[in-house]
Amino acid sequence: MEVINRYVTIKTHVDGAPEESDFELKASAVALSLEPGSNEVIVKNLCVSIDPYQLNRMKSYSSSQKSSDFAVGIIPGEAIDTYGVGKVVISENSEFEKDDIVAGLLNWGEYTVIKPGGMLNKLNPMGFPLSYHVGILGFSGLTAYAGFFEVCKPKRGEKVFVSAASGSVGNLVGQYAKLIGCYVVGCAGSKDKVALLKEKLGFDEAFNYKEETDLKSTLKRYFPDGIDIYFDNVGAEMQEAAIVNMKIHGRIAVCGVISEYTDAGKRAAPSMIEVIYKRIKIQGFLAGDYLNIFTDFLSTTRDHLRTGKIKPLEDISDGVESIPCAFISLYRGQNIGKKIVKIAEE
Amino acid sequence: MEVINRYVTIKTHVDGAPEESDFELKASAVALSLEPGSNEVIVKNLCVSIDPYQLNRMKSYSSSQKSSDFAVGIIPGEAIDTYGVGKVVISENSEFEKDDIVAGLLNWGEYTVIKPGGMLNKLNPMGFPLSYHVGILGFSGLTAYAGFFEVCKPKRGEKVFVSAASGSVGNLVGQYAKLIGCYVVGCAGSKDKVALLKEKLGFDEAFNYKEETDLKSTLKRYFPDGIDIYFDNVGAEMQEAAIVNMKIHGRIAVCGVISEYTDAGKRAAPSMIEVIYKRIKIQGFLAGDYLNIFTDFLSTTRDHLRTGKIKPLEDISDGVESIPCAFISLYRGQNIGKKIVKIAEE
Ligand SMILES: NC(=O)c1ccc[n+]([C@@H]2O[C@H](COP(=O)([O-])OP(=O)(O)OC[C@H]3O[C@@H](n4cnc5c(N)ncnc54)[C@H](OP(=O)(O)O)[C@@H]3O)[C@@H](O)[C@H]2O)c1
Ligand SMILES: NC(=O)c1ccc[n+]([C@@H]2O[C@H](COP(=O)([O-])OP(=O)(O)OC[C@H]3O[C@@H](n4cnc5c(N)ncnc54)[C@H](OP(=O)(O)O)[C@@H]3O)[C@@H](O)[C@H]2O)c1
Repeated sequence: MEVINRYVTIKTHVDGAPEESDFELKASAVALSLEPGSNEVIVKNLCVSIDPYQLNRMKSYSSSQKSSDFAVGIIPGEAIDTYGVGKVVISENSEFEKDDIVAGLLNWGEYTVIKPGGMLNKLNPMGFPLSYHVGILGFSGLTAYAGFFEVCKPKRGEKVFVSAASGSVGNLVGQYAKLIGCYVVGCAGSKDKVALLKEKLGFDEAFNYKEETDLKSTLKRYFPDGIDIYFDNVGAEMQEAAIVNMKIHGRIAVCGVISEYTDAGKRAAPSMIEVIYKRIKIQGFLAGDYLNIFTDFLSTTRDHLRTGKIKPLEDISDGVESIPCAFISLYRGQNIGKKIVKIAEE
Repeated sequence: MEVINRYVTIKTHVDGAPEESDFELKASAVALSLEPGSNEVIVKNLCVSIDPYQLNRMKSYSSSQKSSDFAVGIIPGEAIDTYGVGKVVISENSEFEKDDIVAGLLNWGEYTVIKPGGMLNKLNPMGFPLSYHVGILGFSGLTAYAGFFEVCKPKRGEKVFVSAASGSVGNLVGQYAKLIGCYVVGCAGSKDKVALLKEKLGFDEAFNYKEETDLKSTLKRYFPDGIDIYFDNVGAEMQEAAIVNMKIHGRIAVCGVISEYTDAGKRAAPSMIEVIYKRIKIQGFLAGDYLNIFTDFLSTTRDHLRTGKIKPLEDISDGVESIPCAFISLYRGQNIGKKIVKIAEE
């Protein structure tokens, strides 16, 4: 048997903000049969993750392509790998059987052929929607959890600032921080997002950064005594403004710098004199380095989800053809929470 | 009895590179008597430290002035405190007696009246010249030791880059790094300094940054496989170039950014995408936070000095009137090693 697999690819490298025209929906036939002993698995993709860092992989030159296994360059015309959840269609790997629900490195398409050694694990949905396992209980969740707890080492009562706070990672950082008794302020790019942060997610304060003219004074207003922890998702001028407002021994987890992804000339030039005198730590990190705490993260987050102490925030589009638009929306601030594309029903 | 105390002060705040004309040598009478029970001590200054950070204290506005006890603003016309070594002339403090050799917060002058609570300790010269206790066995030494060992957490075989490497802190960082088996490259601003680093201080390599046109390629040449540790004394473009050349899990100790002290508009705008993908840590620090390891630092460094494994590098000028010139020389790269002014013979 054969199926038609539709998948999304880039036409050429993408060096600025992505546009619909940079993408192409391709189709190819996939034989639903495997060579005996091949150890391969064919997965029908159900939910796939839409992440800002993919843009760095689409660039014609990206330093990230040299320094991380998570970020090898995307080749125009080829399928684009991504974290996702799917269902086994056929398996020559003894670890998996037909109809197993699995999570791992799939792609922006309808089917994935997983080669031996490919990242794939059986998934226990634990009663949650499968999409949760792509976001809040997947890498976005781990990023927030590891970045906040392991990198920032927060203490009760500390003052925390999060950028892109209504995003997938950001909203969770804020929720984790509230749970351990921190004071949390988030910024986001619309009035509705600001309301959501304060009213639904329990942030102490939130502001629309697009309405502010002087970010340094804005942060001074929200943190008159300074910031202990800045969880940076955006980089550039927001990072500079945060550093000016950091307290002594402040910590910055540099999770992402989305405002710099679309514009290589845009960078933070923070005052290093402040960094020295205030003994600030600026730490880049990748969630993938923290797989050792995945179990801990998962059980904590699952429990909080069950008791309602953590609220999921998802933004789901339907169908493989919606992937380019879903991806582009990240750079336009059009998503609220974890951006996911549901490729097929279970 | 009364003595004339000559001391150096600034005429007005200094906001750019310092010039001789920014300074003034003043004189005032100091009564060599103290009120009984005053707990005060009068010290005759012998050797005083000349440090780059003083410029930040001279600025009309400096963020450092708000964030560190070590860096309160200097008031034009008033004496300028500094670390130094002196001799007790008269004491109303039961901890000190006439003729005690002491180290602590003195000033750029001939005498210091130490108020109760002022930073002063008896000094055991341990057979070393008093100047050593201002530099290599004083704060410069502690800065290098704490910054390198505590902040950078080096491992044998790691590749270390040090800027301002012929300076007081930098030369010691390189020497400590060699002692634990690191590969060390330093940069400095003249051919003679480069020769000194390689021939006298045992650096593996050194280069004159003033002769390089593209610092990123320069560092790539010296570190084809990348830098594990960058000990930053200068900031700006050198920091940017180092970050491009860092390895995964690289660490940057931001000790000082002298090239930014004289020009507030000059800043590093490092690629945060590199910081994330390479999980780089950028950590500002102050030596004053590491007084808890002073004893450890002192005994280690003393032993290495005695066995000749660490070589002292000092640059001494004579007389209180030479202070402005000595200070200015730091920003012109005219010092080699620890800049000290010997105010008087013991
Ligand atoms: N280090 C890691 O292991 C790791 C793992 C996952 C994600 N990340 C990083 O974490 C960050 C957040 O990722 P996410 O998956 O949670 O995405 P997300 O926050 O859900 O989506 C991106 C959000 O960024 C904001 N944004 C877009 N362009 C911006 C700009 N120019 N300036 C300021 N804000 C902008 C938008 O919200 P607004 O309405 O606020 O503008 C947008 O909704 C990204 O930088 C990503 O690369 C890192
Ligand atoms: N964090 C702390 O606790 C702490 C404590 C002490 C010192 N520090 C900092 O550590 C650094 C070194 O201090 P130090 O006392 O050892 O001084 P130093 O290195 O002995 O003297 C300063 C040296 O910096 C170099 N320099 C001057 N202007 C420069 C420029 N524009 N670009 C590049 N290099 C320049 C010069 O050497 P070249 O020939 O190489 O140009 C000069 O000799 C300073 O930034 C200082 O503020 C920090």
